[in-house]
Amino acid sequence: MPPRTKPDEYLLAPSPETSGLTRTVMGRDQTGAQVAVNVVEERPLSIFLNSREIVTAMTIGDYPEYLALGFLRNQGMLADADTVLGVDYDEESEAVVVRTDQVTDFEGKLEKKTRTSGCAVGTVFGDMMEGLEDLTLPDSEVKLSDIYALSAQINQTPSIYLTAGAIHGTVLCEGAQPLVYMEDVGRHNAVDKVAGWMFSEGVSADGKLLYTTGRLTSEMVIKTALMGIPALVSRSGFTAWGVEIAQQVGLTLIGRMRGQRFTCLSGEERLVWDVDPASVPDEPKKNRRKGAE
Amino acid sequence: MPPRTKPDEYLLAPSPETSGLTRTVMGRDQTGAQVAVNVVEERPLSIFLNSREIVTAMTIGDYPEYLALGFLRNQGMLADADTVLGVDYDEESEAVVVRTDQVTDFEGKLEKKTRTSGCAVGTVFGDMMEGLEDLTLPDSEVKLSDIYALSAQINQTPSIYLTAGAIHGTVLCEGAQPLVYMEDVGRHNAVDKVAGWMFSEGVSADGKLLYTTGRLTSEMVIKTALMGIPALVSRSGFTAWGVEIAQQVGLTLIGRMRGQRFTCLSGEERLVWDVDPASVPDEPKKNRRKGAE
Repeated sequence: MPPRTKPDEYLLAPSPETSGLTRTVMGRDQTGAQVAVNVVEERPLSIFLNSREIVTAMTIGDYPEYLALGFLRNQGMLADADTVLGVDYDEESEAVVVRTDQVTDFEGKLEKKTRTSGCAVGTVFGDMMEGLEDLTLPDSEVKLSDIYALSAQINQTPSIYLTAGAIHGTVLCEGAQPLVYMEDVGRHNAVDKVAGWMFSEGVSADGKLLYTTGRLTSEMVIKTALMGIPALVSRSGFTAWGVEIAQQVGLTLIGRMRGQRFTCLSGEERLVWDVDPASVPDEPKKNRRKGAE
Repeated sequence: MPPRTKPDEYLLAPSPETSGLTRTVMGRDQTGAQVAVNVVEERPLSIFLNSREIVTAMTIGDYPEYLALGFLRNQGMLADADTVLGVDYDEESEAVVVRTDQVTDFEGKLEKKTRTSGCAVGTVFGDMMEGLEDLTLPDSEVKLSDIYALSAQINQTPSIYLTAGAIHGTVLCEGAQPLVYMEDVGRHNAVDKVAGWMFSEGVSADGKLLYTTGRLTSEMVIKTALMGIPALVSRSGFTAWGVEIAQQVGLTLIGRMRGQRFTCLSGEERLVWDVDPASVPDEPKKNRRKGAE
């Protein structure tokens, strides 16, 4: 993992001032007055694995290489055994190509599927549950003091969300320290960018925790589990299938975390009550996220 | 359009008490106390067009037939010229098959693509912008009094969101009257279910308006425009591409609508200031949606 310049600093934090991530649009408010509104960009990015076009993601546009790598990893299309020779992003064609030294297992499967069934449009994404059965997540602790500290710090970190709204954040954390904070139009893209960063930097999932502003759906839980991260914390709510998968794989799942309050619906055995929740200050009203929705 | 039993009633409203849409899960809160939490279901639904599997959607599970029809319509895979012979949902296999009397144009295109490029996994969804160029949306008015009345009524309508959270709503409206209120895990599914209902019932888009709890992304704007609906209103924010497409097709786009406030970033020429926004009561605090996020 790359060294931090200061011990309490992010390795990667949002840069809301970066040009090209937001845009000012003119409109009218309810009084008819002209207003300038800062809105997030949203652009297509086509992800290729070698010569195959896999998907077109709608993304804010930063870190296309991490997004492509993380997406392919989290979909099980790029395995540990695959050697990545390069990740090439072309801004003009809005495409990113991940090149491996050999044809991947996934490409082989897809080739077969295409031959036997004509095309596999809907089914390629059906393998997401693959790899969950024999998964064992690390046995680490999740301290209440840490998740309260993380939640407070993340919500006050300058971000594109605070500037323009309509965006989700996902943060890779260790103990009370947020490390990498990614934002994107889709919450799944933000997670994939974190996964791509971890893969590129060779960062282990041991002792890590993932914080997200988005809902705890099956997709979010599956991605976190496949990344080998044992705990997923969110400000938002749960879906039943998200909870079910978390319980199956033994992932600690905490939702509706705002101020003192949270609800843990899976993996509570990792929780360490090292602080009295009643002593935790409530969220300052101005820092309350209204949610990207 | 089917008749309403009472003039101010929904034709279709959420039914949060319907079994199978939410589930009670046991967990712990921050004090360690056991809590029962009501969470929304989320299940896969495979959508077939004749013999072709098109996509697997993650959905709460109600109205699978409307979801399938609306999805295929909004993706341009099912055209006006196509005659739908039947829509068959099979609960056990979690699949819905839309059958037409002839092979559709889309199937023909897909067949060709599969032959020429091996497989079209990522590209089938690339045609979403098709049909937007020569689109003319109706020239109807959007009265401020209507959108304030709609916003207030919709937010107080009993819904799965109010019961379990973590879900989005989309409402087809006419004047000050909400007609059809669909909810789903993904905001795009809720829109597709409205589109499927309109297609099934042969309801025209003239004079209609769409209200959504979700963000105004490109996908939401494209779907609304392709449905022929001239106005889209949301509690949430915008993306730049969503605004750009709305301006291109002349769709009235209103976001961040909460209490008195809103921002209109496209198609303001339809707005009719027939009420003083300052006279509109603010949202009662208990009805404030925290957003599905």
